[in-house]
Amino acid sequence: MQLAKGVMANFRIALIQLHVSAAKTENLNRACGLVRSAAQQGAKLVVLPECFNSPYGTKYFPEYAERIPGDSTQKLSEIAKECGVYLIGGSIPEEDAGKLYNTCTSFGPDGAMITKYRKIHLFDINVPGKIQFQESETLSPGATLSVIDTPYCKIGLGICYDLRFAELAQIYTQKGCQLLVYPGAFNLTTGPAHWELLQRGRAVDNQVYVATASPARDEKASYVAWGHSTVVNP
Amino acid sequence: MQLAKGVMANFRIALIQLHVSAAKTENLNRACGLVRSAAQQGAKLVVLPECFNSPYGTKYFPEYAERIPGDSTQKLSEIAKECGVYLIGGSIPEEDAGKLYNTCTSFGPDGAMITKYRKIHLFDINVPGKIQFQESETLSPGATLSVIDTPYCKIGLGICYDLRFAELAQIYTQKGCQLLVYPGAFNLTTGPAHWELLQRGRAVDNQVYVATASPARDEKASYVAWGHSTVVNP
Repeated sequence: MQLAKGVMANFRIALIQLHVSAAKTENLNRACGLVRSAAQQGAKLVVLPECFNSPYGTKYFPEYAERIPGDSTQKLSEIAKECGVYLIGGSIPEEDAGKLYNTCTSFGPDGAMITKYRKIHLFDINVPGKIQFQESETLSPGATLSVIDTPYCKIGLGICYDLRFAELAQIYTQKGCQLLVYPGAFNLTTGPAHWELLQRGRAVDNQVYVATASPARDEKASYVAWGHSTVVNP
Repeated sequence: MQLAKGVMANFRIALIQLHVSAAKTENLNRACGLVRSAAQQGAKLVVLPECFNSPYGTKYFPEYAERIPGDSTQKLSEIAKECGVYLIGGSIPEEDAGKLYNTCTSFGPDGAMITKYRKIHLFDINVPGKIQFQESETLSPGATLSVIDTPYCKIGLGICYDLRFAELAQIYTQKGCQLLVYPGAFNLTTGPAHWELLQRGRAVDNQVYVATASPARDEKASYVAWGHSTVVNP
């Protein structure tokens, strides 16, 4: 079933604000358990957070990186199929041809991988006295947009800092997307400053829905995520 | 004096949140008095609100419309020169060749008119049970952007509903504007929903300053303005 152009169905979306630890297998199992639980509650589209199988930090990316397809994405494919949901698999550190990427894979209810989106706008930031982070120390940027066609709506993908760039959302809107999904791990500096503002701005400016999924806040982590996973209507 | 490209000077801006009545001459005199007062307090750039010499409403526009130059803009020119300030003259209903426009004129400290900006995005809105307004009943849209080069910064102009359109702000930013000024009369429906959000969004997305000047709120007016004149930093 495909809807007429521009029409959006009613459906339930689940945003999984996952607690992410240093134990990759535990992260994967916890994520899969919550996907199952969301599906049982009627979710047709489930979204995991950025960097859901690895701590967020440039020193962790090489250690946790996998090829795609690989163990983590195989798990995502299986759980999407088992639950019969569309699954936007947050992101994982990806290794490909000697380079690392921050990559979001998505899967259909048949378990097939639909898209592989690599974060375009790397998070290189230095707010003196607050936060310094340079993703480009170990990551390379992506260069391709990803659109997911579902029976419910058309979805445009971004990851975290991609949200800061109005043009990405505008292009997705021009492509007919009605929902923009950004797995994202803002922090305690950029979170209060921009997280809600940018989502509401993208939604109003483009007259689309915006959804974000963040890792749960863990005050003991080396990088403390803002949390506040959100859905905004137009 | 012109600053090097991209450099912005420190200067004081005044936003005049004017009480606007049905008496045009009183509105003009009140505005000029407040421009004088702002200049005495060190303002180098003064901004009046949208529709500052006329009540806001399609039935008023034909009655209050003037040619430009005309009496109202002559007054603005004189007060800018007297006070030695840059003056962004909010907007007035303009008549030209049988058509009406919502037009913002601006003046230099020498009293010369710098720009004549006609509102591009007319405010045609119908929120059932809340507000219905159709500027296009009597007004025609403008089709040209206006940039003001000052010794302090480069300014891009919009009027009210123009603020809803991200592209206008993006184009001004590409032209090197560091400050966007929108005289605007949002209302009690669109004000709480969008006034602050849009200004902060334009500022963050484009890394520019944004300033707005609204008429004062008058609960007895046929159109009640939101007020909340604002400056936002990037």
